[in-house]
Amino acid sequence: MLRSCALRLRTPGLVRCLRGGAPLPARDPWSPRRSFSAEVSHVDHSLPNPSWSKDMRLLFDQFMKKSEDGSWQRLPSYKSKFSPKTEEQMKVFFSDAKPIKEQRSQPQLFPRNFEEGLGFEYVMFHNHAEDKTVCIFQGGPYLQGAPGFLHGGAIATMIDSTFGISALIVGGIVMTASLNINFKRPIPLYSVVVINSQVDKVEGRKLFLSCNVQSVDEKTLYSEATSLFVKLDPKKSLT
Amino acid sequence: MLRSCALRLRTPGLVRCLRGGAPLPARDPWSPRRSFSAEVSHVDHSLPNPSWSKDMRLLFDQFMKKSEDGSWQRLPSYKSKFSPKTEEQMKVFFSDAKPIKEQRSQPQLFPRNFEEGLGFEYVMFHNHAEDKTVCIFQGGPYLQGAPGFLHGGAIATMIDSTFGISALIVGGIVMTASLNINFKRPIPLYSVVVINSQVDKVEGRKLFLSCNVQSVDEKTLYSEATSLFVKLDPKKSLT
Repeated sequence: MLRSCALRLRTPGLVRCLRGGAPLPARDPWSPRRSFSAEVSHVDHSLPNPSWSKDMRLLFDQFMKKSEDGSWQRLPSYKSKFSPKTEEQMKVFFSDAKPIKEQRSQPQLFPRNFEEGLGFEYVMFHNHAEDKTVCIFQGGPYLQGAPGFLHGGAIATMIDSTFGISALIVGGIVMTASLNINFKRPIPLYSVVVINSQVDKVEGRKLFLSCNVQSVDEKTLYSEATSLFVKLDPKKSLT
Repeated sequence: MLRSCALRLRTPGLVRCLRGGAPLPARDPWSPRRSFSAEVSHVDHSLPNPSWSKDMRLLFDQFMKKSEDGSWQRLPSYKSKFSPKTEEQMKVFFSDAKPIKEQRSQPQLFPRNFEEGLGFEYVMFHNHAEDKTVCIFQGGPYLQGAPGFLHGGAIATMIDSTFGISALIVGGIVMTASLNINFKRPIPLYSVVVINSQVDKVEGRKLFLSCNVQSVDEKTLYSEATSLFVKLDPKKSLT
C-alpha cells in the first residue's frame, strides 16, 4: 500500500541523506531528540521497553553496535500524528481521501496501536550501502491466529512495513503494487524473528524488493516474500 | 497462515454441515446462543454495534435477508479463548508451540483486538452451494498506513482472514501456503469495502482461492488476491 514514511518520519532531509547526500552522521541520527516539526509525537517506539525479550534486546544491541560506524542506522518509529498539511499532500495523489478531522478518533499508525508487549514490538535498521533494511520483530499475544501462533495478517503487516521503509528510502513517496508471501512455517507467539529486506532492482518508477523471515539463530526460515512498489508522481492524481 | 477456525468456532459439526452434511438450519445457526463449549467467549463481534456506518449496516441487513432461505449464513466471530485442550491439538502439528500459560497475557484473535470502531469491524457470510465467503469490512482510524488510508497489512489481514474461513469450511484445519495481493487503489479510512472470496479449485490437500476487494457500489476495485492453502494431516507433525 501507499508509503509516505518520509512524511511519517518528517525527515525528507534525512531520507535524502540516506540516499547518498551528505555523509551519514555517526550515532543515532534518527534520535527523537532531533528537531522534527511540532506535530510529531516524540515517543519513539523503536527503543527497548520492558516487554522486549532477551533475544530482542540482544539483537537490538548487536545492530546498535553495527551502527557506530554509520553503516547501519536505527529508524525511529512513532504512532504518527499527521498534520493537516500532510493530509493535503496525500490528496495530491488521492482525491477521495476522507476528511479525517470530521471523524471522532485520531488516526494512528496501524502496527503501533497495541499496548506495550501485546502486539507489534519492532525496530528497523537500514544499511544504505547495500539498500537493506532489517526488522527485528517480537509478536505479542494479541496477534494470534491459530492457537499459539501469529496471524498471517500480522506477519504480512510487518513484511509490508519493512518493504515500505526500504522502498521509501530509495524511491521517496511510493505505493505497494503487489505483495507475494510464501509461508514456510508458522511463527510461535512471543518469539523474535528477523525480517531481512532488500531492494533488488529499480526500473524507472518501479522498485522490486524481496525479504525472508528467519529465527534469531537463522536456522528456521519462516517466510519469504517479494513486492513491487511504484514511485508516485506528485504532478498526477490517481483518482 | 495456519487456520484452525473450526477450533476457534468450536463447531466441527457445523463445519461438516456446511460441507454438505445435514440440511442447513434456517436463520442464524451460528448464533452464540448455541451450545458451544465452556471456554468460548460469548460476545459475537460480527453483530452490529454503534460504530458501524450506514453502509456497513445496510450491507449487513442485505446479507441477513439473503440468509433467510439458508443459502447464505452469517459466521460469528469471537476474540477466541483457547482451552489447554485446543493448544494440545495444535502441538500435534507444531511441536515448537510455546506454552502460552507461562506468558502474562491471554492470547486473542488479532483482528478482534481493537476497541469498537477503532480497528477491524467486519462480518462474514458464507454461501455453501457456491463455496463463496463475503466479508463486509469497515477499517477504523487505528489501521492507518499513509495519512487517510488503510495500512496494506490491515488489508492483507482481512484478506487472509476471509480466505482462511473459506478454506477451513472446505478443507478443515488448513494452513496458508501463499498469499498474493495486487493493490489497485488505496482504501480510505472509515470506508466500507466488500471482500468477495471463493474456493476456485481443490487438488488433493491443496485449496486454491481468489478474491477481490470492492467498494460498496462495486464501482471501485481496490485489490485482487489469490492464495494457496494446504490441509494439515493430523497424523504428521510439521516440526
